Amino acid sequence: MTTAPERTASARLLGLLARDLPPDRLSTDPAVLAAHATDRSGSRPDGEALAVVHARRTEDVTVALRHAHALRVPVVPRGAGTGLSGGATASEGSLVLDLSGMDRILELDADDQLAVVEPGVITADLDRAAGAHGLRYAPDPASAALSTIGGNIATNAGGLRCAKYGVTRDSVLGLEAVLADGTVVRTGRRTVKGVTGYDLTALLTGSEGTLAVITSATLRLRPVPVATATLTAYFASFEQAAEASYAITRAGVEPALAELVDGPVLHAIDPALRERGAALLVVQCDGAGAAAEAAAVARLMAPLATTVQTTEDPAEAEALLAARRLALPALERLGRPLIEDIAVPRSRLAEAVREIRAISARHDVPVFTLAHAADGNLHPIVVVDPSLDRLPEAAWEAAGEIFALALRLGGTLTGEHGVGLLKRQWVAEELGPAAHALQRRLKEVFDPRGILNPGKCL
Amino acid sequence: MTTAPERTASARLLGLLARDLPPDRLSTDPAVLAAHATDRSGSRPDGEALAVVHARRTEDVTVALRHAHALRVPVVPRGAGTGLSGGATASEGSLVLDLSGMDRILELDADDQLAVVEPGVITADLDRAAGAHGLRYAPDPASAALSTIGGNIATNAGGLRCAKYGVTRDSVLGLEAVLADGTVVRTGRRTVKGVTGYDLTALLTGSEGTLAVITSATLRLRPVPVATATLTAYFASFEQAAEASYAITRAGVEPALAELVDGPVLHAIDPALRERGAALLVVQCDGAGAAAEAAAVARLMAPLATTVQTTEDPAEAEALLAARRLALPALERLGRPLIEDIAVPRSRLAEAVREIRAISARHDVPVFTLAHAADGNLHPIVVVDPSLDRLPEAAWEAAGEIFALALRLGGTLTGEHGVGLLKRQWVAEELGPAAHALQRRLKEVFDPRGILNPGKCL
Repeated sequence: MTTAPERTASARLLGLLARDLPPDRLSTDPAVLAAHATDRSGSRPDGEALAVVHARRTEDVTVALRHAHALRVPVVPRGAGTGLSGGATASEGSLVLDLSGMDRILELDADDQLAVVEPGVITADLDRAAGAHGLRYAPDPASAALSTIGGNIATNAGGLRCAKYGVTRDSVLGLEAVLADGTVVRTGRRTVKGVTGYDLTALLTGSEGTLAVITSATLRLRPVPVATATLTAYFASFEQAAEASYAITRAGVEPALAELVDGPVLHAIDPALRERGAALLVVQCDGAGAAAEAAAVARLMAPLATTVQTTEDPAEAEALLAARRLALPALERLGRPLIEDIAVPRSRLAEAVREIRAISARHDVPVFTLAHAADGNLHPIVVVDPSLDRLPEAAWEAAGEIFALALRLGGTLTGEHGVGLLKRQWVAEELGPAAHALQRRLKEVFDPRGILNPGKCL
Repeated sequence: MTTAPERTASARLLGLLARDLPPDRLSTDPAVLAAHATDRSGSRPDGEALAVVHARRTEDVTVALRHAHALRVPVVPRGAGTGLSGGATASEGSLVLDLSGMDRILELDADDQLAVVEPGVITADLDRAAGAHGLRYAPDPASAALSTIGGNIATNAGGLRCAKYGVTRDSVLGLEAVLADGTVVRTGRRTVKGVTGYDLTALLTGSEGTLAVITSATLRLRPVPVATATLTAYFASFEQAAEASYAITRAGVEPALAELVDGPVLHAIDPALRERGAALLVVQCDGAGAAAEAAAVARLMAPLATTVQTTEDPAEAEALLAARRLALPALERLGRPLIEDIAVPRSRLAEAVREIRAISARHDVPVFTLAHAADGNLHPIVVVDPSLDRLPEAAWEAAGEIFALALRLGGTLTGEHGVGLLKRQWVAEELGPAAHALQRRLKEVFDPRGILNPGKCL
């Protein structure tokens, strides 16, 4: 009889997971590891992950976390990997916890307008399921057809419709989540209102997998609006389009979405669109007052725009929205788009874009800009040569100046994509030392050994 | 020369406060102490407080907390004292921190639709100031004419309009707050969206003064709706009125408010109203589609109601809402109203009221019920003899059964008033042991010595 060789924490973890998880849940196949190593941010992992746990139920998550916690092995939770800030990038030796297989809609209650879902449910699938009851899931990140509810909650994802319906947090009523040590907690409730205890639901929403792993969510659904009216307006300059968006706000109209597209993006989609104007504003109003609101918006646009076009027909509305929806694919044809995500007070949009243009010129880095105008949320997009192994220094510097600009204008580094890996170095500046220190202490309450998505978010 | 006598923490605190605060900030006058000892819940303090600090600026709060923390003296923050759950009840020997004097609106930015205010600003005053710019502060707790923004944030106050515009949390963009040890932190931002770091703003909102003392708030304002339409309907039974409210939800109409008043309340207001029906439903729709929505609601009501009346005239609307607004004063004429605040999933309203009626009969305790129907938030009100020194046992038992009912129906102990002192004993049951323990650990991060409003909330 020989004594067992001293085994590393990694090896021991693999042994325990193999013992305690159903057989199909654990993978160490290098191809599987590679497929679960990063997100759509372009960030590269610093080495190979240890293994992937394909969770199918809450117990898989508790088993994985309990053992990883005991052995102090980092865990990187992930949904569909559509994040844009490196939040799901797997660090060397980490255990990847893939939640995309927990994809059941557990309940859809039309009377109480809520759904209970597992974290791997694709956002658009939930919206479709709700549609069968005349309801919808309001948050609509651009990735909705691919991204998961769990990932949306982890980043507090936004989207086009949050102009009127709020961000993901505003649709999350309650959560089931697993703490670092495997403890299952339930937060929130099934009611619209409720103030018993601290708002852990909001605290977990947007915490980027650093506080707990979400295993189920109770989500608010809303009625599909009875009517929708959509309007596009082209402008001679981005500043005029921004002015038009301020005019909408000032007039007290709350559109369901208000999307700004700048000239370079229009040109990338189709040079013919660029000839129609130097900026496009797409506005959608919905509800019983949709037509009246759209008419009010059209009146406000008329003196500022070069052309204004309105429709209440859904198919035609889709055509009007098409330019906005085609923006990213068009930029992807030009290279690898790095999508920034700053937000500024709404009245500073024009100023922000003017400054971004100056930053672009100073560093000779082309910047393309989309904006959720009603939220002051800008996506300046730097497109880089996809063959480059790493981001050119100039692009990195331009990004840094864009972040500094956001803070200078009273804004934020990230409106809806999250901090992830990519924006970590600016976080302390935005939060300030006292709040930053407080957040780190909160993290320790949830995850005293720092195993949950280390190096992300804070 | 004699050695100074050993001084108690209380005496030392008074000395330090007298030394470090401006002269008009500290009071130990028994009449002042008595006037700052409790709220409108009817809960009685367990002894006399040590002193009241009348804060006028953030520095007063930091001075008070720094010394109280060092000396481990409990601090009870308060605004206008309009709370209904004992959250501002001063415990024996505690330092009362009165924030009602920090009452400046620091900024009102119409372009960005936000205000920065001190915590002592009266909620209705902010709403009025916003009105000068065509804006309003959406949350409208019944106490709005008296209560402060700080108190509203501490309890995450609701109100009538949260049916459409959400609770206080949905209007708080950012906070300045002072931790137990006197550290000032800033949370959130001036932008509508933003996901950098954890959502401390939401965590502090509703924390009932147990995590930090709020010294300033950045609040979202919203346009005053272009139109409003109001409708009242009387029903032969509360169940039919509840059914009518479900019908509104099912039809996808989102009213700005939907208030249910039961027969006993109608009778208390005016026996003639009770003759019109056994329940009243008041619905208000607003925005460009107000008239169309109200017409849709009226059509839904027609087959269920005994009478339906609609108006788009604001003065007439006020008259229609009057019965709802008169409910509390009417009940105060009958005795001391103890206002409960459970919330249930919206579709369980009728069931909740049926059960409440049974509880009322079983304990021979009259219960009067108001409800924010669109939120499933019920206010069962027990009216007790004001000459009684303490709550009759039967009333206490009935309240306990009402809480148990709320939890059994998948609801919550408190929709908008907070836990305070009165509902503490049921909190652990609602939260469950894991979440409760986690919340206690979070409390320790903010307030390691447990000086902030001890015994409240958790």
